[in-house]
Amino acid sequence: MEISKLLFAVLCLSLTFSSVIAESSKICPANLDGNDSGEWDGEFFPGIPKINYEGPKSKNPLSFKWYNAEEEILGKEMKDWMRFSVAFWHTFRGTGGDPFGAPTKVWPWEDGTNSLDMAKRRMRANFEFLEKLGVDKWCFHDRDIAPEGNTLKESNANLDEIVTLAKELQGTKIHPLWGTAQLFFNPRYMHGAATSPDMAVYTYAAAQVKKAMEVTHYLGGENYVFWGGREGYQTLLNTDMERELDHYATFLQAAADWKKKIGFNGTLLIEPKPQEPTKHQYDWDAATTASFLRKYGLIGEFKLNVECNHATLSGHSCHHELETARINGLLGNIDANTGDPQVGWDTDEFLTDISEATLVMLSVVRNGGLAPGGFNFDAKLRRESTDVVDLFIAHISGMDTLARGLRNVAKLIEDGTLAELVRNRYKTFDSEFGSQIEAGKVDFETLEKKAFELGEPRVASGKQELAEMIFQSVL
Amino acid sequence: MEISKLLFAVLCLSLTFSSVIAESSKICPANLDGNDSGEWDGEFFPGIPKINYEGPKSKNPLSFKWYNAEEEILGKEMKDWMRFSVAFWHTFRGTGGDPFGAPTKVWPWEDGTNSLDMAKRRMRANFEFLEKLGVDKWCFHDRDIAPEGNTLKESNANLDEIVTLAKELQGTKIHPLWGTAQLFFNPRYMHGAATSPDMAVYTYAAAQVKKAMEVTHYLGGENYVFWGGREGYQTLLNTDMERELDHYATFLQAAADWKKKIGFNGTLLIEPKPQEPTKHQYDWDAATTASFLRKYGLIGEFKLNVECNHATLSGHSCHHELETARINGLLGNIDANTGDPQVGWDTDEFLTDISEATLVMLSVVRNGGLAPGGFNFDAKLRRESTDVVDLFIAHISGMDTLARGLRNVAKLIEDGTLAELVRNRYKTFDSEFGSQIEAGKVDFETLEKKAFELGEPRVASGKQELAEMIFQSVL
Amino acid sequence: MEISKLLFAVLCLSLTFSSVIAESSKICPANLDGNDSGEWDGEFFPGIPKINYEGPKSKNPLSFKWYNAEEEILGKEMKDWMRFSVAFWHTFRGTGGDPFGAPTKVWPWEDGTNSLDMAKRRMRANFEFLEKLGVDKWCFHDRDIAPEGNTLKESNANLDEIVTLAKELQGTKIHPLWGTAQLFFNPRYMHGAATSPDMAVYTYAAAQVKKAMEVTHYLGGENYVFWGGREGYQTLLNTDMERELDHYATFLQAAADWKKKIGFNGTLLIEPKPQEPTKHQYDWDAATTASFLRKYGLIGEFKLNVECNHATLSGHSCHHELETARINGLLGNIDANTGDPQVGWDTDEFLTDISEATLVMLSVVRNGGLAPGGFNFDAKLRRESTDVVDLFIAHISGMDTLARGLRNVAKLIEDGTLAELVRNRYKTFDSEFGSQIEAGKVDFETLEKKAFELGEPRVASGKQELAEMIFQSVL
Amino acid sequence: MEISKLLFAVLCLSLTFSSVIAESSKICPANLDGNDSGEWDGEFFPGIPKINYEGPKSKNPLSFKWYNAEEEILGKEMKDWMRFSVAFWHTFRGTGGDPFGAPTKVWPWEDGTNSLDMAKRRMRANFEFLEKLGVDKWCFHDRDIAPEGNTLKESNANLDEIVTLAKELQGTKIHPLWGTAQLFFNPRYMHGAATSPDMAVYTYAAAQVKKAMEVTHYLGGENYVFWGGREGYQTLLNTDMERELDHYATFLQAAADWKKKIGFNGTLLIEPKPQEPTKHQYDWDAATTASFLRKYGLIGEFKLNVECNHATLSGHSCHHELETARINGLLGNIDANTGDPQVGWDTDEFLTDISEATLVMLSVVRNGGLAPGGFNFDAKLRRESTDVVDLFIAHISGMDTLARGLRNVAKLIEDGTLAELVRNRYKTFDSEFGSQIEAGKVDFETLEKKAFELGEPRVASGKQELAEMIFQSVL
Repeated sequence: MEISKLLFAVLCLSLTFSSVIAESSKICPANLDGNDSGEWDGEFFPGIPKINYEGPKSKNPLSFKWYNAEEEILGKEMKDWMRFSVAFWHTFRGTGGDPFGAPTKVWPWEDGTNSLDMAKRRMRANFEFLEKLGVDKWCFHDRDIAPEGNTLKESNANLDEIVTLAKELQGTKIHPLWGTAQLFFNPRYMHGAATSPDMAVYTYAAAQVKKAMEVTHYLGGENYVFWGGREGYQTLLNTDMERELDHYATFLQAAADWKKKIGFNGTLLIEPKPQEPTKHQYDWDAATTASFLRKYGLIGEFKLNVECNHATLSGHSCHHELETARINGLLGNIDANTGDPQVGWDTDEFLTDISEATLVMLSVVRNGGLAPGGFNFDAKLRRESTDVVDLFIAHISGMDTLARGLRNVAKLIEDGTLAELVRNRYKTFDSEFGSQIEAGKVDFETLEKKAFELGEPRVASGKQELAEMIFQSVL
Repeated sequence: MEISKLLFAVLCLSLTFSSVIAESSKICPANLDGNDSGEWDGEFFPGIPKINYEGPKSKNPLSFKWYNAEEEILGKEMKDWMRFSVAFWHTFRGTGGDPFGAPTKVWPWEDGTNSLDMAKRRMRANFEFLEKLGVDKWCFHDRDIAPEGNTLKESNANLDEIVTLAKELQGTKIHPLWGTAQLFFNPRYMHGAATSPDMAVYTYAAAQVKKAMEVTHYLGGENYVFWGGREGYQTLLNTDMERELDHYATFLQAAADWKKKIGFNGTLLIEPKPQEPTKHQYDWDAATTASFLRKYGLIGEFKLNVECNHATLSGHSCHHELETARINGLLGNIDANTGDPQVGWDTDEFLTDISEATLVMLSVVRNGGLAPGGFNFDAKLRRESTDVVDLFIAHISGMDTLARGLRNVAKLIEDGTLAELVRNRYKTFDSEFGSQIEAGKVDFETLEKKAFELGEPRVASGKQELAEMIFQSVL
Repeated sequence: MEISKLLFAVLCLSLTFSSVIAESSKICPANLDGNDSGEWDGEFFPGIPKINYEGPKSKNPLSFKWYNAEEEILGKEMKDWMRFSVAFWHTFRGTGGDPFGAPTKVWPWEDGTNSLDMAKRRMRANFEFLEKLGVDKWCFHDRDIAPEGNTLKESNANLDEIVTLAKELQGTKIHPLWGTAQLFFNPRYMHGAATSPDMAVYTYAAAQVKKAMEVTHYLGGENYVFWGGREGYQTLLNTDMERELDHYATFLQAAADWKKKIGFNGTLLIEPKPQEPTKHQYDWDAATTASFLRKYGLIGEFKLNVECNHATLSGHSCHHELETARINGLLGNIDANTGDPQVGWDTDEFLTDISEATLVMLSVVRNGGLAPGGFNFDAKLRRESTDVVDLFIAHISGMDTLARGLRNVAKLIEDGTLAELVRNRYKTFDSEFGSQIEAGKVDFETLEKKAFELGEPRVASGKQELAEMIFQSVL
Repeated sequence: MEISKLLFAVLCLSLTFSSVIAESSKICPANLDGNDSGEWDGEFFPGIPKINYEGPKSKNPLSFKWYNAEEEILGKEMKDWMRFSVAFWHTFRGTGGDPFGAPTKVWPWEDGTNSLDMAKRRMRANFEFLEKLGVDKWCFHDRDIAPEGNTLKESNANLDEIVTLAKELQGTKIHPLWGTAQLFFNPRYMHGAATSPDMAVYTYAAAQVKKAMEVTHYLGGENYVFWGGREGYQTLLNTDMERELDHYATFLQAAADWKKKIGFNGTLLIEPKPQEPTKHQYDWDAATTASFLRKYGLIGEFKLNVECNHATLSGHSCHHELETARINGLLGNIDANTGDPQVGWDTDEFLTDISEATLVMLSVVRNGGLAPGGFNFDAKLRRESTDVVDLFIAHISGMDTLARGLRNVAKLIEDGTLAELVRNRYKTFDSEFGSQIEAGKVDFETLEKKAFELGEPRVASGKQELAEMIFQSVL
């Protein structure tokens, strides 16, 4: 493919900042010669080998230094702890556009169209990528993988065509970690999907989710995700929040019913995020979502997909959100990424911080793993990273970082000192009186009597600095 | 009282920044001549008259411009919408100390001690203040009003002595809006009270709450508040969050049981705050607290005391937190204050923003008022405001601002345009099909069929700028 | 224009979230029948009258309630204090796209192309808008008003063609408040323009700025603005910050030289912003930019264009940034907008907060006005506001809010109490010794001697609550 | 010392939350038997040995795993890169008080007084601590080490007495990294010291700084620090910011003059902080402070003391602030600590993050070290860490973390890949034309001509993910 065609491609994919649109119509031809029916000669990633484990001393960027899929750690193979998945949207539909800038990626296999043929070619690239990376799971939005048609029926037909190909390409080893419906990009969803004030939008969204659930089931997906990017408000002045939340619950209940009807056994997952694009998103964080699920009797039907970048945007550490989900019995999946601690929007970076990765894996190990959930790389290249090989480097780095975190957790558990420090802090509650308190059997009168007996408590040091020293010693 | 005594007073009350303690022991005499048994000659606030309503054109700082207690607005007297309360701790125990500085307040009635006599004199000042301000409710922590003794028994005895006086001074018109136990100042609570890892601390806290509930009941308090300033963690590395939350729920259940046992009919209120002093406080915000109450079956026993400054610290507008509490049936009381939008800690300022006051009152009116809750001025003078008259100016300003908000809400309701705009946005759900959706009777298959029928939705403008224009027109 | 064409239009303008691109190529025809050579039958805004002043009691959304252009306030006509300008990019190129969603605006005059003809038609719409709104200034980026060509020469030719038309449409009464070059949207600028590590990009940017300055001069622009959206870094790991800042200074010096060479007398303005799209932008805030200008000897050549939303993103109040600019002699222009206090990105909302508007106008009045700068409405409709009339409502609201602010400042000055309070706080420095200190004539030895003489200072109350009460009284 | 005495001690040191003062006057005796004239039998830290280097495999909390003082790294001994210093105030005057809680520390050597004898005993403890930790520098505020008297003369006399002892205890090996005057705790400074509106306060502050500079010089201090905790504003409504900044500059000029007069050759350092306790502090961050120094002609007289926790509070990474200081020639000293990324106030924690430590050391190495500055541990134990041994654990952890950072930097430099990646990005500027641009010799006309020649730039990938992978490989 010649370079001039590539330049057309990038401009026609063009993200346009709301106020600055630069490209001329003439350089967005309606018909590039995308007539290859999704075919593509040879490899999509020529020169990039299968990525192998070479150990921590390797200087080869295209190798794993810490992730050794079949190596057993804490009683399981690393791949079973990790259950890595590639996000189709970031990796194959990410353009590098941002609110102030046009797309920057010029992948060789793109022809500048959003045709069905292009969708097929892209799907083939996806499976070559998965194979070379050694990952056997992927995640998708319906509208990423197949073009939206002029009508819902046409959109569904497009989706069916692509999904048939994907099923074939999956073979027996690969399947989706999860699928989802994209309910935020199209202007019809600007006021929300399930929480739109317009009944026709609610209805349309339901039809779209119905289809996306069916398609996920067909592909052997293990989970189905709801991210309500537009389920929230821009201003309370024009919003009936109570009515919108009622609609949301009704919608989710109908989805849970549909799951059963079609025999889909995957987990339904809600992905909390505090805001962006809306000023306030109803699924603010793990606790807010848990409250909603409990209020509307949906607590048994849904789990959470916790994203680290969303956690920090909501004012929490990722570890906090994971632990909150875990102790509420709701930790279903992790969107593995990270944000920038000085930045107030979603940056979806690949996690490379060893300390955070270790805390994340600590929650995963306490949870006994994530299955049927896993780690989805909801992370994207920086806008300025424009080489094809950057896609591999980023994923390798993200996988290695979490693998390194798991190895650290194994060391922490083997050492045992930190767990002992924690256990020791609560030991008075292991006494007889403590156990009775925990059993809810001690009333205020008895407690008062006991307090008079015990006198002034002698409170022990919290030993935070020691805990931090122990934690660092395994990094 | 001579000036030298005042100087001793301020230094002996001295807040000392953790690292910088400047005052010499010799200038903190153990025995000031605080031998007047709480007596005080004449007025505490000489020269300050009863504060009267003079209307918006008045330039007199010691008058109300907007708050006219008996004036009827929206079917109720202003005082019944407002139910104002003065916070004893900020107004009478606030010293002006901060993490980097010593106390700055030198109130004439203080003698530099924390004696019972001083506590009595201070209580008399409180009632003169209430009377002059025209406020008939007050709020207190147990340890604000009476000195902590060497033992719990001694503390209880001190409290009894002061409470007996307060009851007498209250007369028939005045009573507490609410009382609470102070479970965060004493080092014994450094790891939490109900969530301390030390059983003896849990026990001690229970005894203290038991007494504080009894005392609140004795004084005719209408509510009882829990603010869990230390119920949270500094680091997850040394914390068993699940076990701590279990303990917290057990504690609150015991409190609810005790309430019934003593025949106290007041509302139990939890006051959410995201953090400070802890890195994470378990009652993070309204939704988090609602989730906790629902998980542990406490939802019928507690309501929320929403504080505006805490709302913004948790990443929400105050209006959002009030609406979240309201639509969950949990809006019980408001701690009327405001924070600084550029500051990451609790500043507890008196609210003077008209726009925010109008939004706050909008939630109150929608809630049908707050009774038996009300507005407690959990707000303090700036550290640099050191004149006695500043105490009056600040409260007048806060009361007037909320009163102005109420007047604006009345105009908004009378105008009707904004409510119409909102109603209109949801009107498609008032159709037959919409009503069936809302009733939970429409499944995904039916919705899909309907979506095919309806075709592409035509979504209306959200009219946010118009809503903002209408809102501003009543300010 | 039929509706189906409009739907094509909006999709072809499509902003595409980096990961989710929905639109099919076939619905983006390369050639809509944009063959009308920029002509348009009749009005662009039929049914919308010239906006007139009707006073505060008017309920007509299409009228000014506070802005009365010729009314004299504080010795000047309101229009001369305000010097309002419409931002071409937000008003005529804003599509409603955001990082997660496609464009939502379907303006009737748009044909879905970015052709020269379309650019001309849009320019006509702009002047009708200005005329109806009663605003005689506008602001633009080069690439907003004319399509980028295949080469720089072609882009320049396109720009010349549009600018010739604009000059004609301006007539004698209208001219640009300022112009600027758009150096952030095109992928070539992804690493910066003047601070790009690539010399060819620096060179290209210089050529683009040269042309934009010439064009601004030709149109009678009164100022020229630099907003360095990409002049910053995404990570320090790959950045030589010192070298980049040196390049930036060299670039700005060359621009200042060029200004003189072409006889352009307008002010050069730098617009600070802390971040977004970059993680760190070099012109972080007013103080940072002042430091840069001073370090490189550019302090006499540039002033600042302060934007309120950028102020709050940098952790300051807008009033703080305005005062910082003012006392450094750098307050040149204001981008009138506001952000959301709970949101960490640029929302560019129209300011409707009366209190903030009053503080903004206080700085403007202290500055003796802004001329040759003014207020540019760097503000956009919410994505969900999709009616043509919303464009008018938003601007009317923004203009009225600032006008109301000016009226409040007049009341504040007339009242005089607040200024007196401030003056009084510093009065000890008006003494003889104080004056000598201020003149830098008193050394530490003399000061120590004086300190021994004076003894312990008696510090007065800061009276913040009184200041807030006075301030609120004029709102 | 018996336990009951300790309990008195902690209560008498009591930090009192502005609103909640619990302790009874009677338990704060004016005269504990602090009659030992600062003497103390035997060791202050019995059982704690001299801390030795044992290497990364050691599990002994009381050993260094990474800091090996005499080991040579990158051409210098570790101790010469580090130049560690203990902060007297946090380590010996930190009480564990916070805005909501009383002190928690009960150090055995404290007698509950702030007497001169106690000050002497504490000073002896300091030197034993330094000796056991193997640190030969310390930092102090005047008011930490000696009690404030009733008059400035008395305060100076107290200071002289303590400083004489400290000089003796220092011996030949130990001396202050820096000294400073404490200008924020005493109520007289509530409106600022050099920026107080009250001339008498300015005067008093000057006298205090004069003395503190003399004392620092006497003790052989290598630097002198200004932290302007109260030099800022709480509200602009009552503030003349311009006049205050003028005063501040005058004050600093007088200090610089005094330095020369007394023959003190140490560096004068300003420590930026954005806010807390004030809403806005004038020395907001490195760039703001640089702007101030440049405006007032003080740029040659002062350098900066960058604190990591202050950096993040101002919205920057610590590495950003260090690099900003460095490339402005202003990097003089580092206050080694860290904040909590989710917390909006100064937590002053010991740094244990390896990644951040490596970035910090990268700046230090680029700066050729910090001498005559160094690393001061402006960090404190968590309030809940109450064992004496926690003081050692915290310092060891902080020292080891920075030492580990230095070792990582050595690996990074040895590897060379990252530096190569950066150099390569800017290589076009090493061309002849590039060099001319950098020399400021190329005007806009020439650049435009060149741009036409060069055509569209081909911009390279920024390789951020690769840079992060390389960086992580050395951790």
